[in-house]
Amino acid sequence: MNVVAISAPGGPMVLKPERRAVPQPGPGEILIRVHAAGVNRPDVMQRKGAYPPPKGASDLPGLEVAGEVAALGEGAARWTVGDRVCALTPGGGYAEYVSVHASNALPLPAGFTYTEAAALPETYFTVWHNVFERGALASGEVLLVHGGTSGIGTTAIQLASARGATVIATAGSAEKCEACLKLGATRAVNYREEDFVAVVKEATDGKGANVILDMVGGSYVDRNLSAAAVEGRIVQIATQGGAVASADVSRIMVKRLTYTGSTLRPRTAEFKGALAAALESQVWPLLASRRVAPVMDMIFPLNDAWRAHERMEEGTHIGKIVLDVG
Amino acid sequence: MNVVAISAPGGPMVLKPERRAVPQPGPGEILIRVHAAGVNRPDVMQRKGAYPPPKGASDLPGLEVAGEVAALGEGAARWTVGDRVCALTPGGGYAEYVSVHASNALPLPAGFTYTEAAALPETYFTVWHNVFERGALASGEVLLVHGGTSGIGTTAIQLASARGATVIATAGSAEKCEACLKLGATRAVNYREEDFVAVVKEATDGKGANVILDMVGGSYVDRNLSAAAVEGRIVQIATQGGAVASADVSRIMVKRLTYTGSTLRPRTAEFKGALAAALESQVWPLLASRRVAPVMDMIFPLNDAWRAHERMEEGTHIGKIVLDVG
Repeated sequence: MNVVAISAPGGPMVLKPERRAVPQPGPGEILIRVHAAGVNRPDVMQRKGAYPPPKGASDLPGLEVAGEVAALGEGAARWTVGDRVCALTPGGGYAEYVSVHASNALPLPAGFTYTEAAALPETYFTVWHNVFERGALASGEVLLVHGGTSGIGTTAIQLASARGATVIATAGSAEKCEACLKLGATRAVNYREEDFVAVVKEATDGKGANVILDMVGGSYVDRNLSAAAVEGRIVQIATQGGAVASADVSRIMVKRLTYTGSTLRPRTAEFKGALAAALESQVWPLLASRRVAPVMDMIFPLNDAWRAHERMEEGTHIGKIVLDVG
Repeated sequence: MNVVAISAPGGPMVLKPERRAVPQPGPGEILIRVHAAGVNRPDVMQRKGAYPPPKGASDLPGLEVAGEVAALGEGAARWTVGDRVCALTPGGGYAEYVSVHASNALPLPAGFTYTEAAALPETYFTVWHNVFERGALASGEVLLVHGGTSGIGTTAIQLASARGATVIATAGSAEKCEACLKLGATRAVNYREEDFVAVVKEATDGKGANVILDMVGGSYVDRNLSAAAVEGRIVQIATQGGAVASADVSRIMVKRLTYTGSTLRPRTAEFKGALAAALESQVWPLLASRRVAPVMDMIFPLNDAWRAHERMEEGTHIGKIVLDVG
C-alpha cells in the first residue's frame, strides 16, 4: 500500500511516500481502506522527533481517518465490510489502510464526505472529553477557549454554543477573530491587541470563565488562573507556549479551581470506545443536522503531506487540514 | 463577657483581654457559652493584619470552640440549652460567648473534654472536605500529607489510615517524623534531609501518591506535580511557603492530574452544615471509639492567647494548641 512515512526526524520535507504491507486487523479490530486522513499537531511533533509513538503503535503519522471497512478482525461484530466510518487511530493514518479498534470507529454522519469525516475524530474526541467530561461545562456557563481557530478551537466553540454555553475565544488576527464569532463565540479576543483576562472579566461582570480550554501553557497559566470563575475548571490539553509556568497558586485555593488536563493518544481502546459511544449519541445528531460541522481549512493529496505540515506550522490556517488518500 | 481581641495588627503581644457585650443568637443560630477555643494559623494571619475577617463576622479571632448551648435563636430546633457541643465559628471564638449557625455545631464525641473537642472542628471540617470530598481519597490509595504534625496533618494521617489509605507524611525533625509514624503514617519524610518526591516514588514502586494535601505551595508545587500518580489529586489548602510557584504544568496533562484546593472560612453556613452532617455520621463514631483522636499540643488560658500564638509561630508544636476559656 501507499503510505507517507517520517524518513528521519526533521522539517516537513522528511515526510516521504513509501510502500508498506497492508496491516492485518487483530482481534476486536477492523481494517479501514482510508479515503482521507486528518492532520494534527501531534503529527508535526512526531515528525520532529519530539513525540515518539506509543509502544505497539505504527511508526507512521496520522491519528484519524475516514474510509470504508475493508476487513473484520475476530469479534469486531458491529461493522460490515463496506461500512463508511471515521475513526481515531493509534497512529498510521497517513496510509491507504489502517487497523483500528472496532469501538474507536463511528459511522460517517449523514451527508458527510470522507474528507469532512476525517476531520472529526481527533478534535471531537478531545473536545468532548476535556470540555464536557473533564471540564463539566454546563448549559448557561462561560467557556474561554484559546486557539479559537485551531481544529480543537473551532470544534469547542461550535459544540459549546450548540449546548447552551457562552463562548469567549482567543485568536491571533482580526480575520481569525471574525471566524470565531461566525462559529458561535459571543466575543473573540485578538491576543496580540487585547488582554484576555480583562476581556473575560468585563464580559462576565467580573465573575470569570467557568471552563477554560488551553493548549498554550507558559505565560497563559497564571492568566488562566486569573480569568477563571469561582469553582472554575481549567483544562490543559497542550503546552505549545511552554510547559514551565510561573503562577500564583493561591488562586486555585481561594477560588476553589480545578486545574486538570489530559492527552488522548495514550488512553486505552476501551476508554476511547466509551468516548465514541458518547459522541455518537450526543454529538452525531448535531453533525447530521449541520448544527455543528468541521471547519475545513485545506485538503492536500497524501503524497503532499509535507505541504500540509508546512501549512500547519505557518499557523495561518483556520480549521482542519486533511489529506486526500484517494 | 471576657474576650481576647487584636488591639492592633502586629506580634503576639497585640492580643489583649477586653470586655465586650454578649452576642445575641440570630435566626437559626445558637449562643454557646465557650469553655475552650482552638487556635489556628488563620488566627495568626488575622492578628498580623494579613487575613481580614469576612463581612459580617466578628473582629475577634477564633474559628472553633467547645462549650454549652446557652441560648437558642429562632428556628435552631436541634439543640437544647445545656447541650455540650463543639462548633466551627465564623470568627469570635476567643471569647466567653459566641453565636454560631446551629448546623455548624456537633455534639461532643462521647468521652471528650471541652479542650479536646475544641481541637476538632477546624481540622476535621478541613480534612474531610479536602482529602475525602475534593481529593476523593479511597481505601487502598496513597496519601502524601505535608506538615504532618500540624493540626491538619495529624488529623489527615489518622483519618486516612483509619479509612484504609496508606499515608506518607513530611515533617521537619526526627521527633516530628516519629510522631507521624505513631499516628499511622507508614513512612515519614524529614524534609530537611530527604527529598519527598524520591521517597514517594520509592515507596509506591514509582507510581506516586494518589492524593497530596499541601499547605506549603512555593517550591512544593512543582515537586507535588512530580510526586503525584496518574489521575492523582493535589489539594492546596494554604501557601505558607509562598503563593507564586514555577512548575512544569505539562505533568497535569500527561498524568491527568486534578490540582484543586479550597479555604473553609468564606463558605456558607449551609455548606459547613453539610460537612458537619458528614462528619457526624462518618467520623464521630471513630472519635467516640478513640480510633482517631486530636493530638493535643498545649493548652493556655484565654488571657494568655499571646503565648499560644508565640508557640504556633515557633513551629515546634505537635498537634493542636487550645485556649481554656474557663
